[in-house]
Formats: sequence, structure tokens, C-alpha cells
Amino acid sequence: MPKISGRGFAMPQSPIRKLVPLADKAKARGIKVYHLNIGQPDLPTPQVALDALKDIDLKIFEYSPSDGLRSLREKLVKYYAKYKINVSVEDIIITTGGSEAVNIAFLSCLDPDDEIIVPEPAYANYTAFAIGSGAIVRPVVSSIDEGFCLPPVEQFEELITPRTKGIMICNPNNPTGYLYTQKELNHIRDIVKKHDLFLFSDEVYREFCYTGAPYISAFHLKGIENNVVLIDSVSKRYSECGIRVGALVTKNEEVKKSAMKFCQARLSPPLIGQIIAEASMDASDEYMLDVYNEYVERRKYMIDELNRIPGVYSPIPMGAFYTVARLPIDDSDKFCEWLLSTFEYEGQTVMMAPASGFYTNKGVGRNEVRLAYVLQKDELAKALFVLRKALEAYPGRTI
Amino acid sequence: MPKISGRGFAMPQSPIRKLVPLADKAKARGIKVYHLNIGQPDLPTPQVALDALKDIDLKIFEYSPSDGLRSLREKLVKYYAKYKINVSVEDIIITTGGSEAVNIAFLSCLDPDDEIIVPEPAYANYTAFAIGSGAIVRPVVSSIDEGFCLPPVEQFEELITPRTKGIMICNPNNPTGYLYTQKELNHIRDIVKKHDLFLFSDEVYREFCYTGAPYISAFHLKGIENNVVLIDSVSKRYSECGIRVGALVTKNEEVKKSAMKFCQARLSPPLIGQIIAEASMDASDEYMLDVYNEYVERRKYMIDELNRIPGVYSPIPMGAFYTVARLPIDDSDKFCEWLLSTFEYEGQTVMMAPASGFYTNKGVGRNEVRLAYVLQKDELAKALFVLRKALEAYPGRTI
Repeated sequence: MPKISGRGFAMPQSPIRKLVPLADKAKARGIKVYHLNIGQPDLPTPQVALDALKDIDLKIFEYSPSDGLRSLREKLVKYYAKYKINVSVEDIIITTGGSEAVNIAFLSCLDPDDEIIVPEPAYANYTAFAIGSGAIVRPVVSSIDEGFCLPPVEQFEELITPRTKGIMICNPNNPTGYLYTQKELNHIRDIVKKHDLFLFSDEVYREFCYTGAPYISAFHLKGIENNVVLIDSVSKRYSECGIRVGALVTKNEEVKKSAMKFCQARLSPPLIGQIIAEASMDASDEYMLDVYNEYVERRKYMIDELNRIPGVYSPIPMGAFYTVARLPIDDSDKFCEWLLSTFEYEGQTVMMAPASGFYTNKGVGRNEVRLAYVLQKDELAKALFVLRKALEAYPGRTI
Repeated sequence: MPKISGRGFAMPQSPIRKLVPLADKAKARGIKVYHLNIGQPDLPTPQVALDALKDIDLKIFEYSPSDGLRSLREKLVKYYAKYKINVSVEDIIITTGGSEAVNIAFLSCLDPDDEIIVPEPAYANYTAFAIGSGAIVRPVVSSIDEGFCLPPVEQFEELITPRTKGIMICNPNNPTGYLYTQKELNHIRDIVKKHDLFLFSDEVYREFCYTGAPYISAFHLKGIENNVVLIDSVSKRYSECGIRVGALVTKNEEVKKSAMKFCQARLSPPLIGQIIAEASMDASDEYMLDVYNEYVERRKYMIDELNRIPGVYSPIPMGAFYTVARLPIDDSDKFCEWLLSTFEYEGQTVMMAPASGFYTNKGVGRNEVRLAYVLQKDELAKALFVLRKALEAYPGRTI
């Protein structure tokens, strides 16, 4: 039997999805599982998007262009303009979710053994796609005790080698909910400029900033316009993760040309999803505000409740709909498995993402988990109560 | 400005899609372009699939599982059973089109500098995905004069090195329409077994075999069950290329595990597409037969007409809906560009795929083009008449 690839072995399992089989088994045993593990919003997709699906009147579901429907890209131009991100239709390539945008960005910009610097904890799939492209992730580790703020510039400088090709940020951040300040982004801009790096900027949580200050995109940073590769997705903002529509946005002509070749190889992004995404941008201000307010309230509720559980600490996230919390436990991988395979409280348990998967180095973040606040408040309340009970019962607790 | 990756430079442009900008310009000039260049069937998607879209009554378009909806995989098991392909739900991973299945198969099985042997002319994107994964394509060249039959076993043996990891076939073949015989497939099986290789078998044109003999899948070849990675897609058989639903099917547990990690990284295949694909399998026998008969007739018509044009030769394809024809011209890349940028006959022209993109080695197949018979017969008639006129007018003609 022929052997699989080394990279197949090296690929990490998704820290978010690897526990799914255990959760399935728990459900089969009749246990109610509260999903705090995944960034799947529970809020309804906008009505305009649901209607757009019903209105589709095609006789053939044909390929769309490799860079996506022009009408969708035109609408995105206007959408970005509202955020003072000034790009043209030609700067936008529609991808199969933000995931594919990351993958194609890495394939287009990075060669095997090239290095990218990533502030950690970081979205686990950056590492996965880096492995896919043969590139190496060099982490700068941010700490929960400092609220996951950007580590000092010196730490970036120390990691720069002749193989450093880029920095990858996620802002607002998944998994920490951290929102970079103008000062921090200026630091990143300076390093990018000084060493002529790519800046891969994942901004899929743009809508969810809770500081009141105007949103800062990588495209707002002066002097690095040709270095920026923006990763976007409609998944989170319109609660439509399943349609798989994202975008790679860049002004760099060489990156565009290269990315298009990868896009042509996979033919086209999903047609129906694109039609839905296009309609979604007509979601009313009311819908967007309702969603926003809902997250604001859940955030307050979840963080307050978490910090009331003995031994638990969560910083206050300023964006997205996640937080990374520290728990009084020996090992969050073990704890999260135990929650699904052994524990139950009145027929209920909780599923969370162990933070180990968000750090490159082994052992870091061992007592941290990522929680997503994508449940209604009453469900959230029950989930956090079950978590409290679980921490009392867990044999590996440290208090 | 930072430099893009070496692989970004090395990636080929799609031979099928690279002429699109020229076609767009021709259309903007008011010219009617007959598309013989792309495998986008013009036949309607089955009514059950169109209805399934209308019947979707979700409030949230959520992520689906990384390996796809279970109900879709269950239905595929039954579908395959009709072709005596005996696989289980666990053997099937749903992908974003057949394209992603090829990509994930290569990433899972091949390391940089590993080699795969590919009978050529071959679907251009195998090379594209090989470049993406860092693997190297070693072509065995089949010849138009022998009707593109499989080259002798010795030619495969000559290419085997310690880095050879697999053979990639497409059966029925894109671009040639060739259908491998049992004897040829046995040869492939023997090489695969002897050298313990992966057999990547792209069988997306399974429905379109015009010999009357039962279809032969790679899974029918005895003794290599763990070596086979089958690539599939619903795109062609149900005329729904735009929904982006395919499958990677394997009994090899290690490949499954590895592929699942790549699937988790990209989260999930398109939800709506999967719902449509599932419904499509209920397409009536009448629909399937109508489609089949339509292609049978177009095939006869197109091949007959092509061979009547002075200097043109096309073998008779036994499967799929393509043929590779030899034209009396200097260079098919130039000719196909010229067709779109310079030529017109009564406001019409023809778009075809230059065969150069289907061969790894430069200069091979220089006077060949791929034509897809995905137009109604009257349109096909006009297209072939325009092609005849173009060949009379082309400055680089060789007769």
C-alpha cells in the first residue's frame, strides 16, 4: 500500500472540528451538547438572502467566471467603500470561502521553506494552509495576561530571516476577539515596509468591533498598498457560512495574476452562493444593527459569567464573537474530550475548542480554550452553568 | 514590493480559460462567439434539481460537515452500486467540485518532487494541482494517429523512478474522449501493483460511454483496492458545473485521514450545492437517456463534419463530450487567439482550447485543438461552418 505524503501526516487536525466524532457519540447517547466550539452564527441569514435563493430562476447551473460574478464584485467595491477601503472590481477575486482565499494567497506568495510571522494564538487553519504550501509559521506569542495585545515590535524583528515573506494577522481576531489599535497596526506597517513583506490580513469579522472607533483595515495603512493581501468572507457577517463565498483582495498585480491561475485550476467559486452573497449586501441596516447588538449583549453576558466561575479568566474581547479563556485545569485537550466522552450534567454538556490548536509551539495555552458566543442568551446561560458544574467535577482541575 | 512564489510563476494558465478576455472583447465588438472551448454542458439541469433549490427552506445557511452531508454520501453509495463500485459512506468525502478532489488527493499523497505518470494529452489542471503540491508530472504521450490509445506498458516502466508515487488517468478521457479498454486498464493495474503506486482515477464522465460495453472503473481492478483514489463530480452528468460538488472516494484509511485534515482546513463543501446534488441523483432514466442520446448524436455530427473539412482529422471519441482534432495550421495557440482577436465570418467566430495546454512538453500537439460538443446541433453546425471558413482565411494555414 503506497504511503501518504509527509505533509498529510504533518497537517494538524482542526482543533475546532476534531472533537466532532465525540460530540456525535454524546448526542447519540441522548446528551444535549452546547456548541461553544465553532464560529457558526446561530442568527438567521438575512431575509433578502433567503429570498434571493427562492428567486433563482436558472435552467442550468453553469460555471461562473474563475474570479467570480462581476456583479458580485461590483457590489463588493461599494461595500468596501463604506469602510473607506478603496479597491476596484479588478482588485477582487471571489473565492470559495475565506479559507480558499488564505490558501490561494499562500500558494501565490510563499514558496516551500518561506516563513510567515503570525501573532498567536491564531486561527488554526493558517498553519494548515501554510503546511499545504510548504511554508513555515513563525509565531510571536501574545499573552492572555496582557489581553492578547500585539507583542512588541522587537519580537517580530527577532524572527525576521532572509526567508521571511510575510506577516499574517486576523483583525478583529479569531480566536481571541482582540482588535488591533492604530498604534499596533502602524508597528506592523513599519515592519512590513522595512522588510518588504506581504501583509496577509484576515478581516472577516470587520462588522463586529465593539469599541465604537472606526474600523481600521490593512488597506488604510499608507505606503504598503502593494503588500496587502486582504482575506474576506461573507460567512460571518450575514450568517451564511455554508454558502462558501469569500474574497481575496489585492492591488498587487503579480499576486493577482498568480492567484488567478490557481483560481482557473479550480474553475469557479460556487454559483448559487455568489448569488446569495450578492443579495446579502442589501441586508437592511436594521438587520445588521440587530445582529451587532445581539453580539454586544452576549459578549457582556458571557465574559461576565466566565469571570465569575472560580479560577476562570477571560479578557474582554473588543471584536469578533470569540474569547480565549483560561480555565483551572491541567490540559484543555483532555478536558474538552472528557466533557464529550465522560461528563454530563442533567443530560447536558459543552463543546469548546482547546487552545492548543491555536499555538504552534507545544504546551503553550494548555489551560486555555476558545469559546464562541454564537448561542441565544438563555442557551448561553445554560452552557456556562454546565461548564461551571464540569469544572467542579473534572478530575484534572487545578483548584 | 515583495515577490510572488516560484510556483505562482510556474502555474500554467488554464488553456481553456486563458482566452476568455479575448472572447469578452470579441463579444463587446458584437461578434457571436461559439463556445467549443469549455466543458460546460448546455443541456438543462434535471428538473428535480431545479425543484430542490426552490424547496430549500432553511433560515440559516450553515456549515455542513467537512466530509459533506451524510445523506448525500449515502445516496452516492447507492449510485455507485449501480456501476458495481462497492464503497461505503466512510469511503466518500464530498469536495468542492472534482477539482478540489484532485487537489486534496495530490496534497494527501504526494510530497514535493514526488512524481506522477500521466498519459497525455491530459486535463490541464492535473499539472496545475501537481505544481501546487510541488509534485512533478511525467508524461507518457499518446498519439492522435493511434486514436490516443494508452501507450505501451514499456513507456510507463521507463518513467518509473524511486520518486514515482502514482499514475493519474481520466476515463473516459478529457480532452480526447478516449475510453480505456479492459486490457489497457489491466496494464495500468499491473504497473500500479508491481510498483505499489497510487492510481488517481478521474471518472467524472462515467455516464458518457458510447461503446455499449459496461463501464470499467478503477475500483473494478482486482488487487489494488487500497491504491485507488477515485475523483468524481456531479457537474457533467447533471449539467450543474456551477454548484461545485465532487467527491474523493478511497478505501485507503491513511489517505482518508489525511484528506479529512485538508477538508477540515477548508471547513466544508458548499451546502446548497450538496442539496442540489443529492436531489439530482433522482433524475429520471428518461432525462439521463435524453442527455446520452443527445451527445451520441452530436458526437457523430461533429466528428463527421470535422473530418470533412480539408486537412482536419479527428479520431472517433468513445466517451465524454470532447475530441482532440488536428488542424492544418502552424500553431493552435496562435490560431485560437486569431479567431477571437482578428477573424470573423458574418459576425461570428469560434472559441476552442489549444491543445498545447494538455501536454507537458513544449511543442507537442501544436496543431491540435480540443473541441467540446456542448452546443445544440444547429449551433454546432454553424460553429463548424465558421471554423471551416476560418481555416480557409487563416494566414498560418499549412495547406
